[in-house]
Amino acid sequence: MIGKKRWAIAEGYIPAAGPHKDTPALQSHETACVLNANREQAQVQLMVYFADREPAGPYRFVIAPERTLHLRFDQLQNPEPIPRETDYASVIEADVPVVVQHTRLDARTGSAALLSTIGYAED
Amino acid sequence: MIGKKRWAIAEGYIPAAGPHKDTPALQSHETACVLNANREQAQVQLMVYFADREPAGPYRFVIAPERTLHLRFDQLQNPEPIPRETDYASVIEADVPVVVQHTRLDARTGSAALLSTIGYAED
Amino acid sequence: MIGKKRWAIAEGYIPAAGPHKDTPALQSHETACVLNANREQAQVQLMVYFADREPAGPYRFVIAPERTLHLRFDQLQNPEPIPRETDYASVIEADVPVVVQHTRLDARTGSAALLSTIGYAED
Amino acid sequence: MIGKKRWAIAEGYIPAAGPHKDTPALQSHETACVLNANREQAQVQLMVYFADREPAGPYRFVIAPERTLHLRFDQLQNPEPIPRETDYASVIEADVPVVVQHTRLDARTGSAALLSTIGYAED
Repeated sequence: MIGKKRWAIAEGYIPAAGPHKDTPALQSHETACVLNANREQAQVQLMVYFADREPAGPYRFVIAPERTLHLRFDQLQNPEPIPRETDYASVIEADVPVVVQHTRLDARTGSAALLSTIGYAED
Repeated sequence: MIGKKRWAIAEGYIPAAGPHKDTPALQSHETACVLNANREQAQVQLMVYFADREPAGPYRFVIAPERTLHLRFDQLQNPEPIPRETDYASVIEADVPVVVQHTRLDARTGSAALLSTIGYAED
Repeated sequence: MIGKKRWAIAEGYIPAAGPHKDTPALQSHETACVLNANREQAQVQLMVYFADREPAGPYRFVIAPERTLHLRFDQLQNPEPIPRETDYASVIEADVPVVVQHTRLDARTGSAALLSTIGYAED
Repeated sequence: MIGKKRWAIAEGYIPAAGPHKDTPALQSHETACVLNANREQAQVQLMVYFADREPAGPYRFVIAPERTLHLRFDQLQNPEPIPRETDYASVIEADVPVVVQHTRLDARTGSAALLSTIGYAED
Protein backbone atom coordinates (compact mmCIF):
# COMPACT_ATOMS: atom_id res chain seq x y z
CA MET A 1 0.00 0.00 0.00
CA ILE A 2 1.45 3.33 -1.06
CA GLY A 3 -0.18 6.74 -1.44
CA LYS A 4 -2.69 9.09 0.08
CA LYS A 5 -6.45 9.53 -0.18
CA ARG A 6 -6.67 13.24 -1.15
CA TRP A 7 -4.82 14.91 -4.01
CA ALA A 8 -4.92 18.29 -5.68
CA ILE A 9 -3.62 19.48 -9.06
CA ALA A 10 -3.52 23.29 -9.03
CA GLU A 11 -2.77 23.71 -12.77
CA GLY A 12 -5.16 22.71 -15.52
CA TYR A 13 -5.53 23.86 -19.15
CA ILE A 14 -6.32 21.81 -22.22
CA PRO A 15 -4.82 23.68 -25.18
CA ALA A 16 -6.48 23.76 -28.62
CA ALA A 17 -6.22 20.28 -30.16
CA GLY A 18 -3.56 21.28 -32.72
CA PRO A 19 -2.74 19.89 -36.16
CA HIS A 20 -2.70 16.22 -35.09
CA LYS A 21 -6.44 16.18 -34.44
CA ASP A 22 -7.02 12.77 -35.91
CA THR A 23 -4.42 11.03 -33.74
CA PRO A 24 -5.75 11.05 -30.16
CA ALA A 25 -2.29 10.33 -28.68
CA LEU A 26 -0.84 13.45 -30.37
CA GLN A 27 -3.72 15.85 -29.72
CA SER A 28 -3.28 18.41 -26.98
CA HIS A 29 -4.54 16.82 -23.78
CA GLU A 30 -4.15 16.61 -20.02
CA THR A 31 -4.17 13.52 -17.83
CA ALA A 32 -4.40 12.73 -14.16
CA CYS A 33 -2.57 9.42 -13.83
CA VAL A 34 -3.84 7.52 -10.79
CA LEU A 35 -1.99 4.46 -9.46
CA ASN A 36 -3.91 2.01 -7.29
CA ALA A 37 -1.17 -0.28 -5.99
CA ASN A 38 -3.52 -1.81 -3.40
CA ARG A 39 -4.91 -5.33 -3.46
CA GLU A 40 -8.43 -3.89 -3.35
CA GLN A 41 -10.24 -1.66 -5.84
CA ALA A 42 -10.25 2.12 -5.53
CA GLN A 43 -13.37 4.29 -5.78
CA VAL A 44 -12.13 7.63 -7.11
CA GLN A 45 -13.95 10.95 -7.27
CA LEU A 46 -12.78 14.04 -9.20
CA MET A 47 -13.93 17.66 -8.72
CA VAL A 48 -12.89 20.34 -11.23
CA TYR A 49 -12.56 24.01 -10.16
CA PHE A 50 -12.65 27.00 -12.51
CA ALA A 51 -11.71 30.69 -12.39
CA ASP A 52 -15.21 32.09 -12.62
CA ARG A 53 -17.93 29.45 -12.34
CA GLU A 54 -19.12 26.75 -9.94
CA PRO A 55 -17.06 23.53 -9.77
CA ALA A 56 -17.90 20.60 -12.07
CA GLY A 57 -18.30 17.06 -10.81
CA PRO A 58 -18.09 14.76 -9.09
CA TYR A 59 -16.73 12.54 -11.86
CA ARG A 60 -16.55 8.94 -10.59
CA PHE A 61 -14.14 6.12 -11.51
CA VAL A 62 -13.30 2.66 -10.27
CA ILE A 63 -9.72 1.39 -10.52
CA ALA A 64 -9.20 -2.35 -10.16
CA PRO A 65 -6.61 -3.67 -7.67
CA GLU A 66 -2.98 -3.20 -8.82
CA ARG A 67 -3.96 -1.18 -11.86
CA THR A 68 -3.33 2.37 -13.09
CA LEU A 69 -5.80 4.76 -14.72
CA HIS A 70 -4.58 7.47 -17.08
CA LEU A 71 -7.59 9.75 -16.94
CA ARG A 72 -7.83 12.16 -19.89
CA PHE A 73 -9.59 15.40 -18.96
CA ASP A 74 -10.56 16.02 -22.62
CA GLN A 75 -12.56 12.77 -22.63
CA LEU A 76 -14.66 13.46 -19.52
CA GLN A 77 -18.38 13.50 -20.34
CA ASN A 78 -20.40 12.82 -17.21
CA PRO A 79 -21.62 15.04 -15.61
CA GLU A 80 -20.15 17.46 -18.22
CA PRO A 81 -17.17 17.91 -20.57
CA ILE A 82 -14.21 20.14 -19.61
CA PRO A 83 -13.85 22.95 -22.17
CA ARG A 84 -10.53 23.50 -23.97
CA GLU A 85 -8.56 26.75 -23.53
CA THR A 86 -10.01 27.30 -20.04
CA ASP A 87 -8.12 27.54 -16.72
CA TYR A 88 -9.05 24.88 -14.20
CA ALA A 89 -7.72 22.88 -11.23
CA SER A 90 -8.79 19.58 -9.70
CA VAL A 91 -9.14 17.62 -6.49
CA ILE A 92 -9.10 13.81 -6.47
CA GLU A 93 -10.31 11.72 -3.55
CA ALA A 94 -10.13 7.95 -3.20
CA ASP A 95 -11.29 5.48 -0.57
CA VAL A 96 -7.87 3.78 -0.46
CA PRO A 97 -4.38 5.29 -0.82
CA VAL A 98 -3.48 6.19 -4.42
CA VAL A 99 -0.77 8.21 -6.15
CA VAL A 100 -1.60 11.01 -8.64
CA GLN A 101 0.57 12.65 -11.32
CA HIS A 102 -0.52 15.42 -13.69
CA THR A 103 0.64 15.62 -17.32
CA ARG A 104 -0.10 17.89 -20.29
CA LEU A 105 0.76 17.45 -23.95
CA ASP A 106 0.52 20.75 -25.83
CA ALA A 107 0.45 20.22 -29.60
CA ARG A 108 -0.66 23.68 -30.70
CA THR A 109 2.53 24.55 -32.55
CA GLY A 110 2.88 21.17 -34.28
CA SER A 111 5.75 19.78 -32.24
CA ALA A 112 4.71 18.49 -28.84
CA ALA A 113 5.53 20.16 -25.52
CA LEU A 114 5.13 18.26 -22.25
CA LEU A 115 4.79 19.11 -18.59
CA SER A 116 4.29 16.84 -15.59
CA THR A 117 4.28 16.98 -11.82
CA ILE A 118 3.38 14.83 -8.89
CA GLY A 119 0.16 16.12 -7.32
CA TYR A 120 -0.17 17.65 -3.86
CA ALA A 121 -1.16 14.94 -1.37
CA GLU A 122 -2.86 14.98 2.01
CA ASP A 123 -4.47 12.40 4.25
CA MET B 1 -10.19 21.85 2.68
CA ILE B 2 -6.92 20.84 1.06
CA GLY B 3 -3.57 22.60 0.96
CA LYS B 4 -1.15 24.65 2.99
CA LYS B 5 -0.78 28.36 3.78
CA ARG B 6 2.85 28.95 2.71
CA TRP B 7 4.35 28.01 -0.65
CA ALA B 8 7.64 28.68 -2.42
CA ILE B 9 8.63 28.43 -6.08
CA ALA B 10 12.42 28.44 -6.30
CA GLU B 11 12.63 28.79 -10.12
CA GLY B 12 11.43 31.81 -12.02
CA TYR B 13 12.35 33.22 -15.45
CA ILE B 14 10.10 34.79 -18.06
CA PRO B 15 11.80 34.23 -21.44
CA ALA B 16 11.63 36.78 -24.26
CA ALA B 17 8.06 36.85 -25.61
CA GLY B 18 8.92 35.05 -28.86
CA PRO B 19 7.36 35.20 -32.32
CA HIS B 20 3.75 34.74 -31.10
CA LYS B 21 3.70 38.15 -29.41
CA ASP B 22 0.20 38.99 -30.48
CA THR B 23 -1.37 35.86 -29.02
CA PRO B 24 -1.14 36.12 -25.22
CA ALA B 25 -1.72 32.38 -24.73
CA LEU B 26 1.30 31.56 -26.94
CA GLN B 27 3.70 34.21 -25.64
CA SER B 28 6.43 33.10 -23.29
CA HIS B 29 5.04 33.37 -19.77
CA GLU B 30 5.07 31.92 -16.26
CA THR B 31 2.13 31.23 -14.00
CA ALA B 32 1.57 30.40 -10.37
CA CYS B 33 -1.69 28.45 -10.37
CA VAL B 34 -3.42 28.76 -7.00
CA LEU B 35 -6.37 26.53 -6.08
CA ASN B 36 -8.69 27.69 -3.32
CA ALA B 37 -10.87 24.62 -2.70
CA ASN B 38 -12.24 26.11 0.52
CA ARG B 39 -15.80 27.37 1.06
CA GLU B 40 -14.38 30.75 2.07
CA GLN B 41 -12.35 33.24 0.05
CA ALA B 42 -8.56 33.28 0.15
CA GLN B 43 -6.45 36.41 0.68
CA VAL B 44 -3.18 35.69 -1.14
CA GLN B 45 0.10 37.59 -0.98
CA LEU B 46 3.08 37.09 -3.33
CA MET B 47 6.71 38.17 -2.75
CA VAL B 48 9.24 37.96 -5.60
CA TYR B 49 12.97 37.45 -4.88
CA PHE B 50 15.80 38.27 -7.28
CA ALA B 51 19.50 37.45 -7.63
CA ASP B 52 20.85 40.91 -6.95
CA ARG B 53 18.20 43.37 -5.77
CA GLU B 54 15.63 43.76 -2.98
CA PRO B 55 12.46 41.64 -3.21
CA ALA B 56 9.38 43.00 -5.02
CA GLY B 57 5.93 42.95 -3.48
CA PRO B 58 3.75 42.17 -1.77
CA TYR B 59 1.36 41.57 -4.68
CA ARG B 60 -2.15 40.95 -3.30
CA PHE B 61 -4.99 38.80 -4.71
CA VAL B 62 -8.35 37.55 -3.56
CA ILE B 63 -9.58 34.14 -4.74
CA ALA B 64 -13.29 33.46 -4.32
CA PRO B 65 -14.43 30.22 -2.60
CA GLU B 66 -13.99 27.08 -4.75
CA ARG B 67 -12.17 28.92 -7.50
CA THR B 68 -8.70 28.77 -9.06
CA LEU B 69 -6.44 31.68 -10.05
CA HIS B 70 -3.86 31.24 -12.82
CA LEU B 71 -1.62 34.16 -11.94
CA ARG B 72 0.59 35.30 -14.86
CA PHE B 73 3.87 36.82 -13.66
CA ASP B 74 4.24 38.78 -16.93
CA GLN B 75 0.97 40.61 -16.19
CA LEU B 76 1.83 41.78 -12.67
CA GLN B 77 1.78 45.58 -12.40
CA ASN B 78 1.25 46.62 -8.80
CA PRO B 79 3.56 47.42 -7.04
CA GLU B 80 5.84 46.81 -10.09
CA PRO B 81 6.16 44.61 -13.20
CA ILE B 82 8.49 41.56 -13.25
CA PRO B 83 11.14 42.01 -15.95
CA ARG B 84 11.63 39.33 -18.65
CA GLU B 85 14.92 37.43 -18.96
CA THR B 86 15.66 37.86 -15.25
CA ASP B 87 16.13 35.12 -12.62
CA TYR B 88 13.63 35.23 -9.77
CA ALA B 89 11.84 33.06 -7.20
CA SER B 90 8.62 33.57 -5.26
CA VAL B 91 6.86 32.95 -1.96
CA ILE B 92 3.07 32.79 -1.74
CA GLU B 93 1.14 33.08 1.53
CA ALA B 94 -2.60 32.69 2.02
CA ASP B 95 -4.90 33.01 5.01
CA VAL B 96 -6.55 29.64 4.24
CA PRO B 97 -5.02 26.43 2.83
CA VAL B 98 -4.35 26.60 -0.92
CA VAL B 99 -2.40 24.54 -3.47
CA VAL B 100 0.22 26.12 -5.78
CA GLN B 101 1.73 24.84 -9.04
CA HIS B 102 4.33 26.64 -11.16
CA THR B 103 4.31 26.53 -14.98
CA ARG B 104 6.38 28.15 -17.74
CA LEU B 105 5.73 28.33 -21.45
CA ASP B 106 8.89 29.19 -23.38
CA ALA B 107 8.12 30.30 -26.94
CA ARG B 108 11.49 31.79 -27.88
CA THR B 109 12.28 29.27 -30.60
CA GLY B 110 8.81 29.32 -32.16
CA SER B 111 7.57 25.94 -30.95
CA ALA B 112 6.49 25.95 -27.33
CA ALA B 113 8.38 24.29 -24.47
CA LEU B 114 6.68 23.71 -21.12
CA LEU B 115 7.76 23.02 -17.56
CA SER B 116 5.68 22.60 -14.43
CA THR B 117 6.05 21.55 -10.83
CA ILE B 118 4.09 21.53 -7.63
CA GLY B 119 5.43 24.19 -5.29
CA TYR B 120 7.18 23.60 -1.97
CA ALA B 121 4.61 23.77 0.85
CA GLU B 122 4.84 24.46 4.55
CA ASP B 123 2.42 25.29 7.32
CA MET C 1 21.81 9.65 4.19
CA ILE C 2 18.94 11.28 2.34
CA GLY C 3 15.76 9.79 0.92
CA LYS C 4 13.04 7.27 1.55
CA LYS C 5 12.65 3.55 0.94
CA ARG C 6 9.37 3.50 -1.04
CA TRP C 7 8.61 5.56 -4.12
CA ALA C 8 5.81 5.64 -6.68
CA ILE C 9 5.65 7.16 -10.17
CA ALA C 10 1.99 7.37 -11.21
CA GLU C 11 2.64 8.34 -14.86
CA GLY C 12 4.33 6.07 -17.38
CA TYR C 13 4.24 5.96 -21.17
CA ILE C 14 7.08 5.28 -23.60
CA PRO C 15 6.14 7.00 -26.88
CA ALA C 16 7.02 5.55 -30.29
CA ALA C 17 10.79 5.79 -30.77
CA GLY C 18 10.58 8.61 -33.34
CA PRO C 19 12.89 9.60 -36.20
CA HIS C 20 16.13 9.47 -34.13
CA LYS C 21 15.93 5.69 -33.74
CA ASP C 22 19.60 5.12 -34.23
CA THR C 23 20.69 7.53 -31.49
CA PRO C 24 19.64 6.00 -28.16
CA ALA C 25 19.96 9.33 -26.31
CA LEU C 26 17.46 10.97 -28.72
CA GLN C 27 14.95 8.12 -28.94
CA SER C 28 11.73 8.48 -27.02
CA HIS C 29 12.33 6.99 -23.58
CA GLU C 30 11.47 7.17 -19.90
CA THR C 31 13.82 6.94 -16.94
CA ALA C 32 13.54 6.49 -13.22
CA CYS C 33 16.65 8.19 -11.84
CA VAL C 34 17.60 6.69 -8.49
CA LEU C 35 20.18 8.37 -6.25
CA ASN C 36 21.89 6.25 -3.60
CA ALA C 37 23.76 8.84 -1.52
CA ASN C 38 24.46 6.30 1.23
CA ARG C 39 27.85 4.79 2.08
CA GLU C 40 26.39 1.32 1.55
CA GLN C 41 24.95 -0.26 -1.59
CA ALA C 42 21.21 -0.18 -2.33
CA GLN C 43 19.16 -3.20 -3.38
CA VAL C 44 16.35 -1.79 -5.51
CA GLN C 45 13.19 -3.50 -6.72
CA LEU C 46 10.78 -2.13 -9.35
CA MET C 47 7.16 -3.20 -9.99
CA VAL C 48 5.31 -1.95 -13.08
CA TYR C 49 1.51 -1.56 -13.06
CA PHE C 50 -0.70 -1.43 -16.17
CA ALA C 51 -4.27 -0.39 -17.01
CA ASP C 52 -5.58 -3.83 -17.84
CA ARG C 53 -3.15 -6.63 -17.00
CA GLU C 54 -1.26 -8.04 -14.03
CA PRO C 55 1.81 -6.08 -12.85
CA ALA C 56 5.25 -6.88 -14.28
CA GLY C 57 8.28 -7.48 -12.10
CA PRO C 58 9.99 -7.41 -9.78
CA TYR C 59 12.92 -5.97 -11.73
CA ARG C 60 16.01 -5.97 -9.49
CA PHE C 61 19.01 -3.61 -9.42
CA VAL C 62 22.00 -2.93 -7.24
CA ILE C 63 23.33 0.61 -6.88
CA ALA C 64 26.82 1.00 -5.46
CA PRO C 65 27.44 3.40 -2.55
CA GLU C 66 27.35 7.10 -3.53
CA ARG C 67 26.24 6.35 -7.08
CA THR C 68 23.19 7.16 -9.22
CA LEU C 69 21.32 4.85 -11.59
CA HIS C 70 19.39 6.31 -14.55
CA LEU C 71 17.13 3.36 -15.24
CA ARG C 72 15.66 3.35 -18.77
CA PHE C 73 12.27 1.65 -18.89
CA ASP C 74 12.71 0.91 -22.62
CA GLN C 75 15.78 -1.19 -21.85
CA LEU C 76 14.22 -3.44 -19.21
CA GLN C 77 14.36 -7.11 -20.22
CA ASN C 78 14.13 -9.32 -17.16
CA PRO C 79 11.54 -10.57 -16.34
CA GLU C 80 9.95 -8.87 -19.41
CA PRO C 81 10.23 -5.75 -21.60
CA ILE C 82 7.84 -2.78 -21.12
CA PRO C 83 5.87 -2.19 -24.33
CA ARG C 84 5.90 1.23 -26.01
CA GLU C 85 2.68 3.27 -26.38
CA THR C 86 1.17 1.65 -23.29
CA ASP C 87 0.02 3.35 -20.06
CA TYR C 88 1.83 2.20 -16.94
CA ALA C 89 2.94 3.30 -13.46
CA SER C 90 5.67 2.06 -11.15
CA VAL C 91 6.64 1.45 -7.53
CA ILE C 92 10.29 1.39 -6.46
CA GLU C 93 11.45 -0.06 -3.13
CA ALA C 94 14.98 -0.01 -1.73
CA ASP C 95 16.59 -1.40 1.41
CA VAL C 96 18.22 1.95 2.19
CA PRO C 97 16.92 5.51 1.65
CA VAL C 98 17.08 6.64 -1.99
CA VAL C 99 15.66 9.52 -4.05
CA VAL C 100 13.68 8.91 -7.27
CA GLN C 101 12.88 11.28 -10.16
CA HIS C 102 10.88 10.39 -13.28
CA THR C 103 11.74 11.79 -16.73
CA ARG C 104 10.38 11.28 -20.26
CA LEU C 105 11.84 12.32 -23.59
CA ASP C 106 9.21 12.29 -26.33
CA ALA C 107 10.77 12.41 -29.79
CA ARG C 108 7.76 11.47 -31.89
CA THR C 109 7.48 14.78 -33.71
CA GLY C 110 11.22 15.15 -34.39
CA SER C 111 12.02 17.85 -31.87
CA ALA C 112 12.28 16.58 -28.31
CA ALA C 113 9.74 17.25 -25.56
CA LEU C 114 10.65 16.60 -21.92
CA LEU C 115 8.80 16.09 -18.67
CA SER C 116 10.11 15.36 -15.19
CA THR C 117 8.92 15.14 -11.61
CA ILE C 118 10.15 14.02 -8.26
CA GLY C 119 8.43 10.76 -7.32
CA TYR C 120 5.98 10.26 -4.45
CA ALA C 121 7.87 9.04 -1.38
CA GLU C 122 6.87 7.15 1.73
CA ASP C 123 8.67 5.33 4.51
CA MET D 1 11.67 31.49 6.88
CA ILE D 2 10.59 28.79 4.46
CA GLY D 3 12.37 25.66 3.32
CA LYS D 4 14.59 22.82 4.47
CA LYS D 5 18.32 22.37 4.91
CA ARG D 6 18.89 19.20 2.83
CA TRP D 7 17.76 18.67 -0.76
CA ALA D 8 18.37 16.03 -3.41
CA ILE D 9 17.89 16.11 -7.19
CA ALA D 10 17.94 12.54 -8.48
CA GLU D 11 18.04 13.42 -12.21
CA GLY D 12 20.94 15.17 -13.87
CA TYR D 13 22.13 15.30 -17.48
CA ILE D 14 23.49 18.25 -19.43
CA PRO D 15 22.76 17.55 -23.11
CA ALA D 16 25.11 18.55 -25.92
CA ALA D 17 25.06 22.37 -26.20
CA GLY D 18 23.08 22.39 -29.47
CA PRO D 19 22.98 24.88 -32.34
CA HIS D 20 22.58 27.99 -30.13
CA LYS D 21 26.08 27.66 -28.69
CA ASP D 22 26.80 31.33 -28.79
CA THR D 23 23.73 32.34 -26.76
CA PRO D 24 24.25 31.06 -23.20
CA ALA D 25 20.52 31.37 -22.35
CA LEU D 26 19.61 29.06 -25.28
CA GLN D 27 22.39 26.48 -24.86
CA SER D 28 21.44 23.16 -23.31
CA HIS D 29 21.91 23.53 -19.57
CA GLU D 30 20.70 22.48 -16.14
CA THR D 31 20.11 24.65 -13.10
CA ALA D 32 19.50 24.15 -9.41
CA CYS D 33 17.52 27.21 -8.39
CA VAL D 34 18.02 27.93 -4.69
CA LEU D 35 15.82 30.44 -2.85
CA ASN D 36 17.13 31.93 0.37
CA ALA D 37 14.07 33.76 1.76
CA ASN D 38 15.74 34.22 5.14
CA ARG D 39 16.98 37.51 6.60
CA GLU D 40 20.44 35.98 6.96
CA GLN D 41 22.83 34.66 4.32
CA ALA D 42 22.92 30.99 3.35
CA GLN D 43 26.09 28.90 3.08
CA VAL D 44 25.31 26.25 0.46
CA GLN D 45 27.25 23.11 -0.42
CA LEU D 46 26.64 20.90 -3.48
CA MET D 47 27.80 17.30 -4.01
CA VAL D 48 27.43 15.66 -7.45
CA TYR D 49 27.02 11.88 -7.78
CA PHE D 50 27.73 9.85 -10.93
CA ALA D 51 26.94 6.38 -12.24
CA ASP D 52 30.45 5.00 -12.16
CA ARG D 53 32.94 7.27 -10.43
CA GLU D 54 33.48 8.97 -7.06
CA PRO D 55 31.31 12.03 -6.26
CA ALA D 56 32.51 15.52 -7.22
CA GLY D 57 32.49 18.39 -4.76
CA PRO D 58 31.83 19.99 -2.47
CA TYR D 59 31.01 23.06 -4.54
CA ARG D 60 30.43 26.02 -2.21
CA PHE D 61 28.17 29.07 -2.62
CA VAL D 62 26.95 31.95 -0.52
CA ILE D 63 23.48 33.37 -1.09
CA ALA D 64 22.74 36.79 0.38
CA PRO D 65 19.62 37.30 2.53
CA GLU D 66 16.36 37.39 0.53
CA ARG D 67 18.06 36.47 -2.72
CA THR D 68 17.85 33.56 -5.18
CA LEU D 69 20.70 31.77 -6.92
CA HIS D 70 20.12 30.05 -10.28
CA LEU D 71 23.12 27.75 -10.25
CA ARG D 72 24.09 26.47 -13.73
CA PHE D 73 25.72 23.05 -13.60
CA ASP D 74 27.49 23.66 -16.93
CA GLN D 75 29.32 26.64 -15.41
CA LEU D 76 30.72 24.87 -12.34
CA GLN D 77 34.52 24.94 -12.28
CA ASN D 78 35.78 24.46 -8.74
CA PRO D 79 36.72 21.80 -7.76
CA GLU D 80 35.95 20.44 -11.28
CA PRO D 81 33.55 20.92 -14.25
CA ILE D 82 30.54 18.62 -14.75
CA PRO D 83 30.85 16.86 -18.12
CA ARG D 84 28.02 17.07 -20.68
CA GLU D 85 26.14 13.94 -21.82
CA THR D 86 26.82 12.21 -18.49
CA ASP D 87 24.26 10.94 -15.94
CA TYR D 88 24.50 12.54 -12.53
CA ALA D 89 22.48 13.48 -9.43
CA SER D 90 23.06 16.03 -6.69
CA VAL D 91 22.64 16.78 -3.01
CA ILE D 92 22.44 20.35 -1.72
CA GLU D 93 22.91 21.28 1.93
CA ALA D 94 22.51 24.73 3.50
CA ASP D 95 22.99 26.12 6.98
CA VAL D 96 19.56 27.80 6.90
CA PRO D 97 16.30 26.64 5.31
CA VAL D 98 16.23 27.05 1.51
CA VAL D 99 14.04 25.83 -1.36
CA VAL D 100 15.50 24.01 -4.40
CA GLN D 101 14.03 23.45 -7.87
CA HIS D 102 15.73 21.61 -10.75
CA THR D 103 15.38 22.70 -14.38
CA ARG D 104 16.85 21.53 -17.71
CA LEU D 105 16.79 23.21 -21.10
CA ASP D 106 17.57 20.73 -23.87
CA ALA D 107 18.44 22.50 -27.13
CA ARG D 108 19.92 19.58 -29.05
CA THR D 109 17.25 19.51 -31.75
CA GLY D 110 17.15 23.29 -32.28
CA SER D 111 13.85 24.02 -30.58
CA ALA D 112 14.05 24.05 -26.79
CA ALA D 113 12.60 21.38 -24.50
CA LEU D 114 12.21 22.06 -20.78
CA LEU D 115 11.76 20.01 -17.63
CA SER D 116 11.51 21.11 -14.02
CA THR D 117 10.69 19.71 -10.60
CA ILE D 118 10.84 20.71 -7.00
CA GLY D 119 13.68 18.83 -5.29
CA TYR D 120 13.32 16.20 -2.57
CA ALA D 121 13.64 17.89 0.84
CA GLU D 122 14.55 16.64 4.28
CA ASP D 123 15.55 18.23 7.58
